[in-house]
Amino acid sequence: MREIRVIGIGAGDPEHLTLQAIRAMNDCDVFLHMAKGTEKDSLAALRRQLLADHMTHPFTWMEVEDPSRDRSGPAYVEAVADWHTARAALYDEALAQHEGVLGILVWGDPALYDSTLRVIALMSTPVDVTVIPGITAPQTLAAQHAVTWNRIAGSVHVTTGRRLRDEGMTADDVIVMLDSQNSFLGLDPSVEIYWGAYLGTPSEILLSGSIGTVGSQIEKVRAEARTEHGWIMDTYLLRRP
Amino acid sequence: MREIRVIGIGAGDPEHLTLQAIRAMNDCDVFLHMAKGTEKDSLAALRRQLLADHMTHPFTWMEVEDPSRDRSGPAYVEAVADWHTARAALYDEALAQHEGVLGILVWGDPALYDSTLRVIALMSTPVDVTVIPGITAPQTLAAQHAVTWNRIAGSVHVTTGRRLRDEGMTADDVIVMLDSQNSFLGLDPSVEIYWGAYLGTPSEILLSGSIGTVGSQIEKVRAEARTEHGWIMDTYLLRRP
Repeated sequence: MREIRVIGIGAGDPEHLTLQAIRAMNDCDVFLHMAKGTEKDSLAALRRQLLADHMTHPFTWMEVEDPSRDRSGPAYVEAVADWHTARAALYDEALAQHEGVLGILVWGDPALYDSTLRVIALMSTPVDVTVIPGITAPQTLAAQHAVTWNRIAGSVHVTTGRRLRDEGMTADDVIVMLDSQNSFLGLDPSVEIYWGAYLGTPSEILLSGSIGTVGSQIEKVRAEARTEHGWIMDTYLLRRP
Repeated sequence: MREIRVIGIGAGDPEHLTLQAIRAMNDCDVFLHMAKGTEKDSLAALRRQLLADHMTHPFTWMEVEDPSRDRSGPAYVEAVADWHTARAALYDEALAQHEGVLGILVWGDPALYDSTLRVIALMSTPVDVTVIPGITAPQTLAAQHAVTWNRIAGSVHVTTGRRLRDEGMTADDVIVMLDSQNSFLGLDPSVEIYWGAYLGTPSEILLSGSIGTVGSQIEKVRAEARTEHGWIMDTYLLRRP
């Protein structure tokens, strides 16, 4: 039985790292990193800096190209499943090539909109998985705006841009991730939005107000930032007044 | 303008502390702790241990009795609002009595089912608030069970026991907090439950399976643990098959 540590490393601030994550990193002998497209350089560099800062023994850094994923068709869930299978084969290969404990560093928390645990479930190698939670982008967003996710005795829904477009506001308080299409613009203009991009990094941008007031500004700022950086990671909280 | 740091300290494991939280703790001169009933001793002790382990300069620890809260009536939201006003007066008093930066250590994350930010909003003293996110109980729950909050392209609802009883499963994946009444027992027995208590502590208990299989076991284990410890903190994830 081989060991894998799936380690949440936070939303972008190197100080999001927990003491538990630092300990788990130091349990590992080899780190596997899946490099993807445009985000490639800056995200891999941040991970390597965390290891340089906190590892107390030598380790192997293994970087492989992330299998390409069909983002074109409407069969989103099926395309993702194929991509997971291709990734699982690379995880198996990493274990075959290297001895010791395998570490996978995950942005945010491995439980929230991350595929690592689903990929591991598809591996052929029998593995013992330890998961370390990490600070997520929506937590960082709320902290930076000094707001809460939920209101007194209320609930909060965490969803995707795609679902927000299909289902609208399914609660008075909704957190939206993975929205590449400014899906908030279709909502009631009186809804409050707390928006943030590159959270926890020096490039962080925060905007808030009613959608009617700041919605088009967020659209503009987001497009400009994406052009400037070559990629964007953003999230937002929607709140009915 | 006085400064307050509202610091998420994680769900119970002292190693949930982030490097950011340790830095923020060390920005503080005085820590205000609201002691409540039966949980009083063990929770205050854990906070004091974190400070003993990580503070690099002398500080003041100020412990006051939490204002009592009317848990009897149906006017839950109103009772909570009164309680917040009473707490805000104590925060003002703490700032009047002590110089320097005030620190408030919060279990989990200040954004999720925590009243600290709402209380601060009711203070008379003008304050500058910095919020530090922390690992929550539902994140620890998912990590310990090695499961995710959401499924591919899915959403997840975070709610209370009270709302689960009133509204049922509002999504295929639902996280329930603050449930003192085993509200999951009323659900379809085929729903999967991932349950955990005292998460991240040496007393941690984990149970999972379909509600039909493990539901009554969770009810029994929960009651016994509550008797043994004098208090219980638990949470669970519900997943439709």
